Parts: sequence; C-alpha cells; structure tokens
Amino acid sequence: MYSLLVLNGPNLNLLGQRQPEVYGHTTLKDIEVLCVATAADAGAKATCVQSNHEGALVEAIHAARGKFDGIIFNAAAYTHTSVALMDAIASVQLPVVEVHLSNIHAREVFRHKSFIAPVAVGQICGFGVHGYVLAIQALLGHLENST
Amino acid sequence: MYSLLVLNGPNLNLLGQRQPEVYGHTTLKDIEVLCVATAADAGAKATCVQSNHEGALVEAIHAARGKFDGIIFNAAAYTHTSVALMDAIASVQLPVVEVHLSNIHAREVFRHKSFIAPVAVGQICGFGVHGYVLAIQALLGHLENST
Amino acid sequence: MYSLLVLNGPNLNLLGQRQPEVYGHTTLKDIEVLCVATAADAGAKATCVQSNHEGALVEAIHAARGKFDGIIFNAAAYTHTSVALMDAIASVQLPVVEVHLSNIHAREVFRHKSFIAPVAVGQICGFGVHGYVLAIQALLGHLENST
Amino acid sequence: MYSLLVLNGPNLNLLGQRQPEVYGHTTLKDIEVLCVATAADAGAKATCVQSNHEGALVEAIHAARGKFDGIIFNAAAYTHTSVALMDAIASVQLPVVEVHLSNIHAREVFRHKSFIAPVAVGQICGFGVHGYVLAIQALLGHLENST
Amino acid sequence: MYSLLVLNGPNLNLLGQRQPEVYGHTTLKDIEVLCVATAADAGAKATCVQSNHEGALVEAIHAARGKFDGIIFNAAAYTHTSVALMDAIASVQLPVVEVHLSNIHAREVFRHKSFIAPVAVGQICGFGVHGYVLAIQALLGHLENST
Amino acid sequence: MYSLLVLNGPNLNLLGQRQPEVYGHTTLKDIEVLCVATAADAGAKATCVQSNHEGALVEAIHAARGKFDGIIFNAAAYTHTSVALMDAIASVQLPVVEVHLSNIHAREVFRHKSFIAPVAVGQICGFGVHGYVLAIQALLGHLENST
Amino acid sequence: MYSLLVLNGPNLNLLGQRQPEVYGHTTLKDIEVLCVATAADAGAKATCVQSNHEGALVEAIHAARGKFDGIIFNAAAYTHTSVALMDAIASVQLPVVEVHLSNIHAREVFRHKSFIAPVAVGQICGFGVHGYVLAIQALLGHLENST
Amino acid sequence: MYSLLVLNGPNLNLLGQRQPEVYGHTTLKDIEVLCVATAADAGAKATCVQSNHEGALVEAIHAARGKFDGIIFNAAAYTHTSVALMDAIASVQLPVVEVHLSNIHAREVFRHKSFIAPVAVGQICGFGVHGYVLAIQALLGHLENST
Amino acid sequence: MYSLLVLNGPNLNLLGQRQPEVYGHTTLKDIEVLCVATAADAGAKATCVQSNHEGALVEAIHAARGKFDGIIFNAAAYTHTSVALMDAIASVQLPVVEVHLSNIHAREVFRHKSFIAPVAVGQICGFGVHGYVLAIQALLGHLENST
Amino acid sequence: MYSLLVLNGPNLNLLGQRQPEVYGHTTLKDIEVLCVATAADAGAKATCVQSNHEGALVEAIHAARGKFDGIIFNAAAYTHTSVALMDAIASVQLPVVEVHLSNIHAREVFRHKSFIAPVAVGQICGFGVHGYVLAIQALLGHLENST
Amino acid sequence: MYSLLVLNGPNLNLLGQRQPEVYGHTTLKDIEVLCVATAADAGAKATCVQSNHEGALVEAIHAARGKFDGIIFNAAAYTHTSVALMDAIASVQLPVVEVHLSNIHAREVFRHKSFIAPVAVGQICGFGVHGYVLAIQALLGHLENST
Amino acid sequence: MYSLLVLNGPNLNLLGQRQPEVYGHTTLKDIEVLCVATAADAGAKATCVQSNHEGALVEAIHAARGKFDGIIFNAAAYTHTSVALMDAIASVQLPVVEVHLSNIHAREVFRHKSFIAPVAVGQICGFGVHGYVLAIQALLGHLENST
Repeated sequence: MYSLLVLNGPNLNLLGQRQPEVYGHTTLKDIEVLCVATAADAGAKATCVQSNHEGALVEAIHAARGKFDGIIFNAAAYTHTSVALMDAIASVQLPVVEVHLSNIHAREVFRHKSFIAPVAVGQICGFGVHGYVLAIQALLGHLENST
Repeated sequence: MYSLLVLNGPNLNLLGQRQPEVYGHTTLKDIEVLCVATAADAGAKATCVQSNHEGALVEAIHAARGKFDGIIFNAAAYTHTSVALMDAIASVQLPVVEVHLSNIHAREVFRHKSFIAPVAVGQICGFGVHGYVLAIQALLGHLENST
Repeated sequence: MYSLLVLNGPNLNLLGQRQPEVYGHTTLKDIEVLCVATAADAGAKATCVQSNHEGALVEAIHAARGKFDGIIFNAAAYTHTSVALMDAIASVQLPVVEVHLSNIHAREVFRHKSFIAPVAVGQICGFGVHGYVLAIQALLGHLENST
Repeated sequence: MYSLLVLNGPNLNLLGQRQPEVYGHTTLKDIEVLCVATAADAGAKATCVQSNHEGALVEAIHAARGKFDGIIFNAAAYTHTSVALMDAIASVQLPVVEVHLSNIHAREVFRHKSFIAPVAVGQICGFGVHGYVLAIQALLGHLENST
Repeated sequence: MYSLLVLNGPNLNLLGQRQPEVYGHTTLKDIEVLCVATAADAGAKATCVQSNHEGALVEAIHAARGKFDGIIFNAAAYTHTSVALMDAIASVQLPVVEVHLSNIHAREVFRHKSFIAPVAVGQICGFGVHGYVLAIQALLGHLENST
Repeated sequence: MYSLLVLNGPNLNLLGQRQPEVYGHTTLKDIEVLCVATAADAGAKATCVQSNHEGALVEAIHAARGKFDGIIFNAAAYTHTSVALMDAIASVQLPVVEVHLSNIHAREVFRHKSFIAPVAVGQICGFGVHGYVLAIQALLGHLENST
Repeated sequence: MYSLLVLNGPNLNLLGQRQPEVYGHTTLKDIEVLCVATAADAGAKATCVQSNHEGALVEAIHAARGKFDGIIFNAAAYTHTSVALMDAIASVQLPVVEVHLSNIHAREVFRHKSFIAPVAVGQICGFGVHGYVLAIQALLGHLENST
Repeated sequence: MYSLLVLNGPNLNLLGQRQPEVYGHTTLKDIEVLCVATAADAGAKATCVQSNHEGALVEAIHAARGKFDGIIFNAAAYTHTSVALMDAIASVQLPVVEVHLSNIHAREVFRHKSFIAPVAVGQICGFGVHGYVLAIQALLGHLENST
Repeated sequence: MYSLLVLNGPNLNLLGQRQPEVYGHTTLKDIEVLCVATAADAGAKATCVQSNHEGALVEAIHAARGKFDGIIFNAAAYTHTSVALMDAIASVQLPVVEVHLSNIHAREVFRHKSFIAPVAVGQICGFGVHGYVLAIQALLGHLENST
Repeated sequence: MYSLLVLNGPNLNLLGQRQPEVYGHTTLKDIEVLCVATAADAGAKATCVQSNHEGALVEAIHAARGKFDGIIFNAAAYTHTSVALMDAIASVQLPVVEVHLSNIHAREVFRHKSFIAPVAVGQICGFGVHGYVLAIQALLGHLENST
Repeated sequence: MYSLLVLNGPNLNLLGQRQPEVYGHTTLKDIEVLCVATAADAGAKATCVQSNHEGALVEAIHAARGKFDGIIFNAAAYTHTSVALMDAIASVQLPVVEVHLSNIHAREVFRHKSFIAPVAVGQICGFGVHGYVLAIQALLGHLENST
Repeated sequence: MYSLLVLNGPNLNLLGQRQPEVYGHTTLKDIEVLCVATAADAGAKATCVQSNHEGALVEAIHAARGKFDGIIFNAAAYTHTSVALMDAIASVQLPVVEVHLSNIHAREVFRHKSFIAPVAVGQICGFGVHGYVLAIQALLGHLENST
C-alpha cells in the first residue's frame, strides 16, 4: 500500500476565498478530503500538509524520506522562485508530481518558469481541483511502473 | 456520450522505435488502443489521428468542429514552433488538453515554450503513455464541469 | 492587363467562423469574390489560392513565376515563423504585398515580427477585409510605377 | 462629409530632397495636394499639418478632437520613440491610420517598433506617396463601418 | 473609523542601526509610534506588525481580511523576489499602499522591480520615515474615495 | 516660506477628458487649484506650469533655479524616454518629487522605467489627483529636513 | 556498398533560377546527377529526394531507416526553424551530414542557428554545389570509421 | 572659405553652472567664442546655435543645407534617444562631426549608444571644451580631403 | 580570541544523505565538529547554526552583531535568490566569508549568481567540506589584517 | 600549382593527448602529414603552421599574402573570441576555409559563434581529422572556380 | 617637454594594404612619421610602437610608466575584446587617448563596445590618419590642463 | 611530495604598484616567496610562472603535464575572456585551483564570468595575497583526497 504526501504551498489555505474566477470555490479542506478519498479508492494512503513558509515546505520534503513513497506537490508561488525547494526534492530523491490549479503556461510569463519541474516526474496544470485526482493517479502509475 | 479526438503530431508514428530511453517502448498503435479503451470505460468515444504535417494537423483541428467535444493533443515538436496550431485551436473553440510523453520542462530550454498552452485547458507531461489516460480523464472532467 | 495571385495562409479558410470579435463575419469566399471584383474594376485579374500547408504555400509562390505579375499575401500564422516563405518570395522575385486582417502590431509581441516583410513591397494591416482591396490597389500602383 | 487630418512628422518637410533613393522625389506639398484631392474625390475633406516638434504633434492631435473624424498619421522618426504621441492618440480617441513611405519592417530593427501601432486602427507602409491615398481610403472605410 | 495594518518586512527591525547613510537613524519603534499617531490624528487606528519571514508576512496579510480596511506595506527585500506576497495580496483583496524608505528606482537595477506593485493601489518611495505618514494619508484618501 | 514649482508634462492638459477610467474626471485646472491651496495651507507657494514640449519642460526646470525651492514633477510620457529632462534636473540641483496619477509599475513594462527617478528625491504614484497633495507634503518635509 | 539518401529541403527545387548571386546557376537536377556520380565513383549509391513540405521531409527521414546507411541533408530554411526535423533525425539514429550551399554563418543572424546541427555528425557550408561532393565523402568517411 | 555650423543641444546653455565636476566651469558663451576664434584662425567661419528643443535642432540641421559646409554637433541627451536627429542629418547630407564634453563611453550604459554616430563622419568625446577645437580641425580636415 | 559564527542554509542538514556524488558523505554534524576544531586550533571559537528558513537566517545574522567577529556563511540555495540575506549582511556590517561545497560556477547558470558576494569579503567554493576549514582561515586572516 | 597554408590554433599541438573522447587519437604531426599528402595528391603544396599565440596567428596570416593561394584555418578557441583574426583575414583577402575537428554547433553555446565565418569561404566541422582532407579539397575547388 | 607613446594594435602594420575602402592608403610608417612631426611641432616627443600581440601591448603599457607622459592608443581589434589592456591602463595610471581610424560606432555592433574607453581620457574615431594628429593635440591639451 | 605550479596572468607583474586600494602593496615577488614557503611548510614544492601573454599561459599549462601535480591559477583579465585557457586546462587534465586577489563577484558584471571555473576544482577570491596560501592548501587537500 503506497503512502503519499500531498503538499500544498503558500496562499492555498485561502482557497475558495481567493480569486474564485481563477481558482474556483473549493476550499483546501475539500481538496484534502478529495485526495484522501482518491488515494483510498486506489488502495493508497494520502497525508496532507500545507504551509506558507518556504522553509517549512523544505522540511516537509525532508521529513517525507522513509515515510512516503512519493509527493504530490503544488508549490504555488514558490514554484517560480524557490531553488531551495528544488534542492530539497533532489536531496530526498522521492518521485514528485507537480500540480497547479490554473494553467500556469497561459498566465504571466514569470509563472511559466518552474524550479520544481527539473526534479519532478511530470506536471499537471489547468484542471482545478480535479488536477489533484489526476496527480494521485499519475504518481501511483509511476510508482507501479518503477517497481 | 462525449466524442473525443486524440491528435498526435510529428514523429509520434515512430514511437516505440524512437529514443526508447526517453519515450519508452510502447507504439502509437498501443496508445491509440489505450485511448479508445479508456474513453470507452468512461462511456465516451475516442477517435485517433496522427500526422507529421503541420497543415494536416491544422485541418484535423478544423474538421473537429461539430464532430468532437474536445481534443487530446500531443503536438510534439510543433508545440514549440507552431503559431498556426495555436490559431487553429483558437478558431474552433473546442477544449484542448495538451499532453506530452516526456516532462518538457525538464528538457532543453526551447521545449519549455508551448504555443498550445495559451489556448489549452491544461497541460499534462512527463507520465509517458499513462499521460493519455490522464488527459482523457481531465478532458472528460472538464466537459462535465462546463455543462 | 495585370494578373494577380491572392494567396491566403493557415486558418483563413475558417474566416467568418473564427474569433469574429477579432476578424469579423466575412468568409474566405466573400474575400475572394471581393478580390476578383476589385481587380476586375481596375482592369486586372485576380486568382485566389488558400492553403494551411507551409509547403503548399511555398509551391504556390514558385508556381506564380511567369504566371502572375505580383502577389497579395496574407501568410497568417506563418508570417511570424516561416523562413521558407521568405526564401520562396526572394526566389521568385515577384512583388509581394503583405496583408493582415488585424493590426498585428497591436497584438501579442510574437505577432509583431514578420519574415515576409523584408522581401515584400509593403504591409497593410488592421483594416479587416477592406485590407485586401487596399492591397490590390497598392500592388497595381506598384506595378504601374515599376514599368 | 468626413473631415480628416493628415498629420506629418519630423523631416517630412524635406521630402523630395531627402534620400530620394529611399523616399522618392515627391515633395510634402505634392503629398498634401494629393491627399486633399483624394479626400475630395471620396466626398471628404482633408486638412494637412506638418511639424518637426513632438510637442506640436501632440497638440495637433489634441486639437483634432471635435474638429476631425480621424487622422492619417505619418509620425516618421517619432513613431519609434514617442510615448507622448501614443498617449495623445489614446486621449483623443479618434481613429488613426498609421502610414509610412518606406517599408519600416524591412529597414533597421529599431524602425520595426511603433508606439503608434497599439493605438491605431491599422498600418500601411512601403508604398511611398501612394500610401497616403490608401490610408485615406482605409480611414474612410473604417469610418463608414463604425457608424 | 478605519483600521489599518502597517506591515514591515525583513531587516526593518534593525532600522536606525542599519546603513544609516541610506535609511537614517529612526528605529522601527519610532516608525510604529509615528504611524499610530498619524492614524489617530486622522481618526483611524493603525496596528503594526514586522517579520523577517516571507511566510509570516503572507499570513499577516491573510489575517488582515475582515480585521483591517487596508494595508501599508514595506516588503523591503521581498518586494523584489516574492510572488507569494503578490498572490497573498491578490487573495485578500484589501487595498495595499506600497512604501519604501529609499528611492528604490535610484538604486541597483534589481530593486526597480516590484512584485507588490501590480496588486497595490500605489507606491511611495524615497521619503524616509515620512513616507509612512504619506502612505497612511494616501490609503485613507483611497478608502474615502472608494466608498 | 517655500516656493514650489508644480510642473506637468505632455497630455496632462487633456486631463478629465482623457481615458477617465485610468485617470479620473478632474481637470488640470482642478489639480493646479488644489496644489496652490495645499501649498498655501502649509504656508508655501505653488506655481503651476504645463507643457507638451520636452524642450519647454527642460527650460522650465532651468528657469526654476533661484526662483523655486523644489519641483513637483509629473513628466507623464517623457518620464520613460527623456534623458534631456534627467540631465536638466541634474543641472539645476533642486529637489524634485516625481508624481504620477496612475500606478506606472502596474501598467505596460515600458512605463516601469523612469529617467526622472535617479535624479529625484522620491516617487509617488497611483493615487490620482491626491498624489499631488502627497507630493507637496513630501517635498515640504524634505525641504525642512534638509535645512 | 553504402546506400545514401540525399535529402533537399524547401526552395531548392528552384536552384539555378533563385538568387544566382548567392547560390549559383546549377539546378537541383545537376546536383542530383553530381551526387549519384560522386557516390558511384566511391562505390556507393545515392538516392535523391526533395520536398518543400516539412512533414514530407520528416517522413523521408523516417523512411530512410533500414533503407539507407546515412543522409546528406540540406534542410534549407527549415534548418533554422524545425524542431520536428531535429526530432526525426534523433528518432532514426542514422548519421546525417548537414550541408548548405551558402556560408550560413556569414548571413543574417537567424541563419546561424541550426536545429539540425545537434543531431548531425557535422556541417559543411559555403562551397556551393561542391559542398554535396564533400558531404558525400564526409559521410562515407564517417561510415567507414564507425564500422 | 568654409562655413561651419556649431550646433549644441539640450542643457548645454547651462554649462559652467551644471555639474562642474563633470563638465568644468566654462560657459556656452565661452565655447562659442572659442569656436569662432578657432575657425577664424583656420580661415573658416563658425556660426553657433543652441536649442533645448529636438524639433528646433532638426530644423537647424535642415536650414544648414546650402548655407554651411558641415556641422559640429553636440546633441547632448538627444544623442541617445533621437531618431529624428539621425534622420535630419541623413536628409541634408552635410558632414557632421559628433562632439561630447565628457567621455560618454565611460558613463552610464545608456549613454554609450549614439543615434548620431551612424550618420556622422566621426566622434570626439572626453576632452571637455577642447573637444570643440579638435572637432573644428577634424571637420576642416575632412572637408579638405573630400574636395 | 575571535568568535566566529558558522551559518548553514537550506538542505545542508541533509548533508551526507543528499546527492553524495555532488556533495560527499560527510554530515552537517561532521562539518560543525570540524569547524569548531579548526577554530580552536587557531585560538578562536566557532559556533554553528543551521536553518532551512530564510527569515531565521536573516535573524541569525542580526543576532550575530556584538556577539561574533565574523561569519562563515553557506547560504546554499538562498545564495541565488535572497535579497533579504544580502540586506541583512549589509545591515550588521560584520565580515562574511561565503563558502559553497560544490563549485557553483561549474553548475547550472542560475547558480553562478550570488546575492551574498557583493556584501562578502570573499568566496570559496568547490572544495567540499575542506572549504569550511579554508573559510575559517580566510576569515581569521581577514580579521587580523583589519585590526 | 596551388600553395596552401594549413594554420592551426591554440591547444591543437596537444592533439592525440587532449580529450580523446572528443577529438580522437591522431596527433598534430599526423594531421600535417595527411594535409601535405592530400595536397600533393591533388597537385598542390601544403605548408603547416601551428601557434598558441593569437598574435602569432595574426602574423602568420599577414605573412601568407603573396606566398599562399589560400588558407585552411582551424582557429580552435580563438574562433569564438578573436576579432583580431577576423580583421587579419579581411586584410589579406586570401580565401580561407574554416575547419573544426568537432561539430562546434553541437557543443556549448559559446562555441556556436565564429568570428572567422564572416570572412571565410565556408566552414567544415565535425568530421575529425578527415575534415582537413575535405577542407583542402574545398579550398582547391574554390580556387579553381575563382580563376 | 612631453614625451608621448603612440601605441598601435593588431593588423595596423598592414595599413595601406588592408581594406583601403575602409582605412585609406596611408601606411603605418606614414602615420608614425606624422605623429613624430605633429608632436615635434608642438614641442613634444612621440615614440611609436606597434604589436599584433595582446601580451606585448600590455607590456608596452607597463613599460610606459616613468618614461612617457601619456599614450595615444589605437588598440584596433583588441579594443572590443581585451580586459587585459583595460587592466594594464588602469595599472599604470597614465592618461590614454583612444583613437580609431574608422567610426567604430557606425560599423558592426560588436565594434561599438570599447574596453579601453572606461579607462581613457577620451575617444577620437572616424577621421582616418588625421585622427592621430587630433589625438596628440588632445593628449597635450589634457596634460597641460592637468598640471 | 607534491609539485605545484603557481601560474599568474596579465598585469600581475605590476602588483604592489597597481591600484593598491584594490590589490594592496605586496609585489608578485612577495607572493611567489610566500607560495614557495607555504608549499614547503606543507612538504610540497611550488614553482612560479607569470606571463602577460595568453599563448604563453596556454603553453605553461601544456608544459605542466608530467611535471606538476596541480596548478594554482590566477588568470587575471584572461579569466573573463579566454576560451583558449579553458581548453588548455581541459587538455592537460591536471587539477586547477582558481584564485583571485579581489572578490570578482563584487566588481563589474563582466568580471563575474569565469571561463576557468568550469574546468577548475574550485575558486577562491577576495582574500588578497592570503588567497594564494588558501589555494595551495585547497589544492594539496584535493590531491590527498584524490589518491
């Protein structure tokens, strides 16, 4: 049974309240419930963590070693600026699936750049909350293929 | 019952023979069978088209109007160079899910740029053949949400 | 009596159906009828060709030598990406008038660049369908001045 | 009956004397006579103003409000450097047709950039003096379509 | 009676000790006292928060919803690097006045860029401690105009 | 008693008529009356000058030496293009407060660059007409601190 | 006995008629005869294909697998724009010698960039028709060294 | 006997008062007296004009045709921004010697670019007032060589 | 007796576990023991702090004032992105020696940029754990020279 | 009988010892023997010179005037940095064939730029030692065509 | 009596033979005779050195300390590439006047950049051989002003 | 017993005389004595070479093979411009420690780039003469670790 970490970055705690025309009305709680259920349906276990602190996200990735089989990671704004998160992922060598609610490649140019991508298995963006379901399926698929 | 076009671009007909260390051993035929099956499981119908010709891809997109509810599009190399495909998608105003076998954001810099992204619902990349399954689910989810 | 080729590029076959807020409701057929009539009024003959294929447009330019006195060319999306069309025009050394329905210099930055411009007599953009009428007049004026 | 302002920018007063291999032998006076005649033929009235001063051109645009239905504007060198003229046009909200004697997109790179374009209806360049005739027709066509 | 949050970012706790030739001798405490007094004089209430942690600043902005009518924000070094703060402001949709002690546009080029500016009402910089007084007046003026 | 020059650049004479959704309905006259009153309230004297001519603005700055204690300067479009105004300010060595009606850092990228900033005390932007009141207070504060 | 594909791209069918001051008077037919003869002299067999269509060139490369030992490729204008041809060559893993009639590094800057180069054995340019003779010798030399 | 125009641009009327650590204490009047004397010593006649207005400088250049044999031009700040002055010089086809008091290539990067240079005989910078003497000698030398 | 702060940034707590092919097998604990011993041998005292939080590193630098004579700083990923750390060092005006385990100038281009360097005495990189020994010697040498 | 200079630049004296996985095991001596033999076979004479000094290479090119009919030049590292060698070739106006052992367009970006190319007949790269044979044939072909 | 070094860089020994349409027919010998005579006329002594070696030019600058009062330096191609010459001039702290035969600012963009300029008194370019006469006068003027 | 080459580049022979505010008063001789002593203390042997000639430095590196165990290299100005030195180091495959007297990353931007870094073990900069001592220790440490 795979154990997955669902890691959410800055401002995602405001989901459902924040720019609903871009991100929809679902809350972070809703997403976490959905992730746990999706994982459970697939015989896996999802644990959810959110932080607005880059350092706390770095440490959540560190702590994932030995405890989780892979990470679903929505680094939000830190996606575009954080070398520290890139290095953290490279350090722990767990498979990471990058997910974004909006299609970052259709927004401002500075959101096209991802420091997570070079150390991630793949990226899923633009499908709102459903993206998390897809990301869990993608990560489970990846884990099955790798063994 | 949704009807989906699975559109594949240049060099994808060589799949399974081409740089297997990057793209794996599955053939285009395998992908198309998988797509039809995935769609069928979800009560939808997938039709598959591949072309190495930018103009033919443009015309496949044109022809999709009125016939399909949405498009799964792996534009391959044309992703990074084709304004014509971008304009074609904008013209027909069908939802498009962009899919790539490899994680294009972890490869050469010129592959980070997508002319498809600004006119697509979202992007899925890096999950190999499984990406098509995810893309079909993403498109069906999008279609259900839009109605 | 001058003989003119009116050459239209990718996606223009969808005119009237495609993003009407940008391009209006006139169809390609309407434009071709208008061009033939405009030329006829000026004692000239217009022949109309459209293709979504870069290679076919290259060959239409090649075929124009000896048959036409000049070309009205709306290369659409290929305007911004095609060195091949630039070279084709340089090869045949026929006068080319570049025309665009929208004001490309008021749109996305990548549409400001034209590979056609350096080998064209001049450019007319932003006047919708009327731009073709102006382009025919411009080309006829140019032909009269050159003889 | 439409009333049009034909506005010419720096160095155009030297026309006919200046780099004739690029701009031809016609003088500014010739152009102004041609514009008045072209407008008259179409049942309109053209008034011609030229200045070498950016500030004077700004003020000519200001003064056009309420007096003219649209502007034919050859901003010459200021095309490439003047945010003030761009703002002046945005302020008065009259339709402006941008015209250039030479094909600016086939000359030095710094001449490809136009600060007028984003606030103009369209652009006509490369047809020498004949460009003014085309521009008047383009502007009149635009005015008729807008009403 | 308006309630304002005065939010100060990294290194501002060292004020008065830090590069006095650039920032002067006033301490953060002095600024906070001044802000409270300035607000009180105008019949408003100012609450002051400082943090060196990007995540803590993000959360201070989140916490401001429903509690404050607007924010005076000196993001200091994070001004130039933090997409997370930009997104936080966009999320809470409170009016933000950006303030800087020094004239950031007269310093190193990387300090000219502000990620706060696109989501702020306006910017005040270069007036040292007095800038906070001006910012409070600007924000109160803005709040009065918006109602 | 301080004597201040309030200097306004190109197109500001159209205020109240120009793009009101960006700049509001107040006229230049209103601003000048407000500036004189604000200065008077603070025991100072404001004199107002506007020009659309870069050269005239240069000369207004030259003429300010010995006559004014400082300048409130809204250089409008010339902010982004005029080295001459930058040099004029450096020449006279009077304190200059840069003011803009709109938040220039939230508009087109070319409006983020200011040639005035490196020779100004500070910048105030985004607060509409109220920005002039703040700028006068900022300049008076600066003058008091400098003596 | 080695079997070689000589593949020519867009506009090369016009050779001898096109910009003779740059490319000389020899026709494509002449080149093909020369290639066949050069190969024959060296005990090899050359087959010649030309297309103006990027997609057709992609497919000619695909078709070369198992049929040819290597490719002499003059991609002409597509050299500078085609990721699809780059990917096609990478797919088939046949040795490719890149040839250009003119010295592309002495022409416009956009012609200095080659998408073929990173997947080619080497490049020969600037020697006109003779370049094909050299390219055949280079490819045969490479094939001999590789075995 | 050669007749020379000594043309000075914006802010040079303030010379001797402006940033003396960069430009020295000599006034514009001193320079003009020096130029007249230098020319007279060499059997030539110098006429001096200064303006802060780009348009007036354009017109001074226009007016020089037929009246002067060449121009000594210190365009000051307009050197770096004025395409109009570049075009004016190209129009009149008089030899122009570009002069600057300071070494513009040792100052801010934006002062390294000269729009005057491509249409000037040569450039002299960094020698303060003495540069005008050298420029007159350079221009007279050029005129003698050209006849 | 000099008192030194050895400050380590994000992900360095994972040392010995993280990408050993780049960073070796030594742990952070090993480094800290080595630093304390190296300092002791030289008659100095080293205190070691590590944090993954940018804000905590800022505060560790603040706290160093009055307590330490200088800092050995490996800012790791924050080296390339943190203006806040740059400003913190400038604030406290303690000598800082920048150290990196790997040769950052031989890795990805974004790692060549250091925001620490402009406010540091010097940089030592590429010597693995031994770099800390060298950095302590460098800092002690600098401290002796400065007194 | 043509007389050719074979000129080799920096580090090529180490050939055979230097990065054999890139450049192979042949020594410079081997190449020189091969060049002399290849030239002799074609009824020409090759003289070989190597230097690690940019100035010596400049002078070897100078000395070639009147003595050689053309130059085979592998400028190695100086290819990418030496304007002096570019100017030397332009000075002597002898035909130069540029040769490189490796495919410079498939290596680091800074090796794609050649200062030799704009003044050379053509370029041959990527064929190892065999490239010299091809270059001699190319140069002889060029010399025969030019007479 | 001032003693001046006239230092000439790479390829200038070929003067009179090299691209005469750009540089004229005078030889280096002619220039050196002219420099000696010009200096003598002004009561000074000129010594002339030329080298094609960057290192030799560096050493000629070193050797100039204590022996010459200033340097006339035409660094030719090394102007655009040599940091070593820039550092050499900074080391010896002799006044240097930069001279170029052609107007480097009117040629290829890479010739606009000078590494000599930031450490030179001033620059004279575009006046051919006469530029050396002007440079000697400029240097003597500078020396007289500095004492 | 390790044998080390201490290699110094252009202008370093002037040390102690050159910009002492940047580089201090120690001479090259002092550095060489220090290096020999430092090596001797560590039971190694240092040999010192300096040249102002890029080619001579290339050859000193070539000559080091078989004779030295590693190189301490201060390439000075050539650090930023010499691909030839980079290639020389790659050729000989000896470990190189890059050293600079000043902190090159805190100086002009063009000094931040090092062509030596990608082929060096590591870099030490900013510690003046002491940097050589550190570099010798670093190299000896590296040599011990590699065996």
